Amino acid sequence: MGQVEFNNAMSLQPVLIAGLWRAAQSTGTFHAENPATDKTLPAEFPISSWADCEAALQVATEAASALRQLAPEQIAKFLMRFAERIEARKTEIVETAHAETALPKAPRLGDVELPRTTNQLRQAAAAALEGSWALPTIDAKLNIRSALAPIGPVLVFGPNNFPFAYNGVAGGDFASAIAAGNPVIAKAHPCHPATTKLLAEEALAALGETGLPLATVQMIYNLAPEDGLRLVADKRLGAVGFTGSRAAGLKLKAAADAVGKPIYLELSSLNPVVILPGALAERGEKIVEEFTGSCLMANGQFCTSPGLTILLAGDGAEKFIASVKAKLESTTPGTLLSAGVAKNLASSVQTLQAAGAELVAGGSAQTGNRFANTLLRVSGEAFLASPEKLQTEAFGNASLAVVAKDAAQAAEIVEHLEGNLTGCIYSETRGADDALYQSIAPALQSRVGRFLNDKMPTGVAVTAAMNHGGPFPATGHPGFTAVGIPSSLRRFAMLQCFDNVRPSRLPAALQNKNPNGKMWRLIDGQWSQADIAG
Amino acid sequence: MGQVEFNNAMSLQPVLIAGLWRAAQSTGTFHAENPATDKTLPAEFPISSWADCEAALQVATEAASALRQLAPEQIAKFLMRFAERIEARKTEIVETAHAETALPKAPRLGDVELPRTTNQLRQAAAAALEGSWALPTIDAKLNIRSALAPIGPVLVFGPNNFPFAYNGVAGGDFASAIAAGNPVIAKAHPCHPATTKLLAEEALAALGETGLPLATVQMIYNLAPEDGLRLVADKRLGAVGFTGSRAAGLKLKAAADAVGKPIYLELSSLNPVVILPGALAERGEKIVEEFTGSCLMANGQFCTSPGLTILLAGDGAEKFIASVKAKLESTTPGTLLSAGVAKNLASSVQTLQAAGAELVAGGSAQTGNRFANTLLRVSGEAFLASPEKLQTEAFGNASLAVVAKDAAQAAEIVEHLEGNLTGCIYSETRGADDALYQSIAPALQSRVGRFLNDKMPTGVAVTAAMNHGGPFPATGHPGFTAVGIPSSLRRFAMLQCFDNVRPSRLPAALQNKNPNGKMWRLIDGQWSQADIAG
Repeated sequence: MGQVEFNNAMSLQPVLIAGLWRAAQSTGTFHAENPATDKTLPAEFPISSWADCEAALQVATEAASALRQLAPEQIAKFLMRFAERIEARKTEIVETAHAETALPKAPRLGDVELPRTTNQLRQAAAAALEGSWALPTIDAKLNIRSALAPIGPVLVFGPNNFPFAYNGVAGGDFASAIAAGNPVIAKAHPCHPATTKLLAEEALAALGETGLPLATVQMIYNLAPEDGLRLVADKRLGAVGFTGSRAAGLKLKAAADAVGKPIYLELSSLNPVVILPGALAERGEKIVEEFTGSCLMANGQFCTSPGLTILLAGDGAEKFIASVKAKLESTTPGTLLSAGVAKNLASSVQTLQAAGAELVAGGSAQTGNRFANTLLRVSGEAFLASPEKLQTEAFGNASLAVVAKDAAQAAEIVEHLEGNLTGCIYSETRGADDALYQSIAPALQSRVGRFLNDKMPTGVAVTAAMNHGGPFPATGHPGFTAVGIPSSLRRFAMLQCFDNVRPSRLPAALQNKNPNGKMWRLIDGQWSQADIAG
Repeated sequence: MGQVEFNNAMSLQPVLIAGLWRAAQSTGTFHAENPATDKTLPAEFPISSWADCEAALQVATEAASALRQLAPEQIAKFLMRFAERIEARKTEIVETAHAETALPKAPRLGDVELPRTTNQLRQAAAAALEGSWALPTIDAKLNIRSALAPIGPVLVFGPNNFPFAYNGVAGGDFASAIAAGNPVIAKAHPCHPATTKLLAEEALAALGETGLPLATVQMIYNLAPEDGLRLVADKRLGAVGFTGSRAAGLKLKAAADAVGKPIYLELSSLNPVVILPGALAERGEKIVEEFTGSCLMANGQFCTSPGLTILLAGDGAEKFIASVKAKLESTTPGTLLSAGVAKNLASSVQTLQAAGAELVAGGSAQTGNRFANTLLRVSGEAFLASPEKLQTEAFGNASLAVVAKDAAQAAEIVEHLEGNLTGCIYSETRGADDALYQSIAPALQSRVGRFLNDKMPTGVAVTAAMNHGGPFPATGHPGFTAVGIPSSLRRFAMLQCFDNVRPSRLPAALQNKNPNGKMWRLIDGQWSQADIAG
């Protein structure tokens, strides 16, 4: 676990740079809080100065060169060993995350999120090993061959809401960046620094055991906003992965864009759900169950939580709203991830109310960083009068129902939606809603990354066909996904073409012989696992 | 050819909006010039106001919705018919382009660039028809299916140097955007508006003949810079393709980035060529021929013209420089594309001289928008003292040789190179240069989109394996290529995922049945042309 240990919670915690746990060159310190008790947790963490960033960049750049020369097998071994080590230390990791986030140890942290995280690491290992993610493309006659290749050190900012699965040092962006052959500089989320440190310890140990450059993984806990902007714009950095708030993400995006640095953002999303009248008539109560279950999952603190529902005015809509209200009011809200989340939620609900939304249920803060399960409603007309304000994200257990007066207004509402991660339409199963569906679906599809039928958007399967992405401002580029292996690897890559390069100098993936007999390559227009004759 | 015609060269030429040749709402007018004679050409073209942009955006948005519903066969038919129509009007198109650009009618315009352009249109048609470009990906068990989909109206800015092959209304970006299912708003390059008008006439006629929405193609000639910035930032626009100067491109990029709009840029590139001593000893004169041929091709006005050569000090380097000097001085320079190009070239050569480069050959302007074939040289030490200034692009028939004192300095020079479209190493064929090659190749590869051995970078084959792209500032994103079908289509697309969507509502490409039996789809991890059982 590195050469230096500072396990005394009273000391300032060290950062991980160049394979060493070393004292940060800090500009200040901070503590995490237990959101369930509002108590400050004992460990003290440094806010890194630019000197730490500079050191991390320097060694990551060297590691990037070394990684480019490594066989994919070795990178895969690291990812698999890291997964094993996380599992072996599961109890401590889950306890620590629970203290920092108030998320339940079971099933959430221990039975769902931790296995999802190690599954992602293993899927990334398999993708690195197999190699098809890079879309190797060969024109055998002209001897022009191309494939995606590592882009250089990747800076990963993890969010507050998934201490494991999106953690900068163990989550989806981390796994993708490493599997694509890049070192990672992880910035912990300041809400769960101790969890991140445990994960980083296991990453470092796994690097040592599998012979990767120890500087493949750096981790700092926090830094001044101006150092963050400087870091994303640094020439030595290859790309950035960011999951978090829109305000912070857009600042980082501007800094990265100004120097042509790819930055992949996952910002905010309302995940509109359109529930058509036939579906409500057919199975209204079932949809209420699905909807409230999805809204309250993790207290609504998922990126894909359904924050906006579009209904058509009528008895069905009123019955739906009444049932949702009853269900929300009869369910005890959970503790939110932090005092900050609770404060922002209250403020967002106020913004929605100020823009014309009426409270149906909840709407007020409760003790212990809880917020009453909340439903608001607004007419279609009022929505169309201030569509921007009424698309304020209320991150947490609050949702807005928009009641359109008719089909045309529902379609108009959809055309005023911002880019979202997901969008969904519930419709009657025998065709009663089909005309309505057709009037809404094309416009909704073009505004979302994942389009669903009859299914709530929470639950993002880690499969090759997943898209956890979408048009701006849900993300920064609608062509990429943060979840779904191997596609998520392609974010952290550059296209590299080899023209007339001598055979022995080609990367293994582009030589005539298929390096593992399993890699799919596009050879003269045909996807194939075969060797090239010659 | 639309309902309105203004063939009298004395009238103000009309713009193409909504399937009509109509009078521009203009803020001013301009004329093209014949660079060979410096004479103003008779036709007068409008500088469009925002009103034209607004009209184009509005109808393009409607066309985008209509195109999304069309079968790929129909889009392919349009592209093929457009190619035929261009060929049928070849004589007039070539004459017009020759008058506007001074590029030779033969072989360049008629025998090389026009066939390349129609070949691109036909390759794009084939890609649209076949459909594999969209990387359809299916998880059959979970019923999650995704593919790239049209992104919306694409604004294409064509450059001055390829009046056909990169023309906004007929070139590579146009073909890619249309084949991916998007309408195009083309901005002509103001150096060849009449050529662009002829191409747009054929596009419109082909749209009519093949039943596509006539608003699939709009064309304006010119607009105020502030309207260009407003246009790229408009919500209704899907994406932007730009080929041109770094200064203009970076302004458009900032405007597009601020609203999360994908913009694909091809800016400037020096295309460094490293020539190792063994190669010079083995075949120096042959390399001189290849190098000068490449430098002077189209008077050096290719994006991939070799503008920077790195040599190792010694007799071989001196002999190479002397031979290149002799060859350049004995070749008559051609007419440059415009007075502006000639002026910028002179200014860039001065910038290089001011930064320490010495003239070896040429360096001065000649009559008729010609510039003496130019070679400059600079020591490795001097280059490292001002690497930025000495990477000033001198667009045209000028090139800089950097003479490194030793291998270590050559490697250091490579590490100071900006992102480029291409990079090349010439080495001895039996291995004498191999150690040197290894000390330079990795750093060069990571800075370029296409890496070559023993071959000059001019000549960009239109093949699936091509990369005409590269790290910033050569382009805006290192993961995409502007040339190479089908990969170039993927720039103008968003990733769209269908989760639990009912079978009949899925796009044809994602249904169980393979729509044409030829489309490659990634089904449960295997690329396949088969149907899915079920």
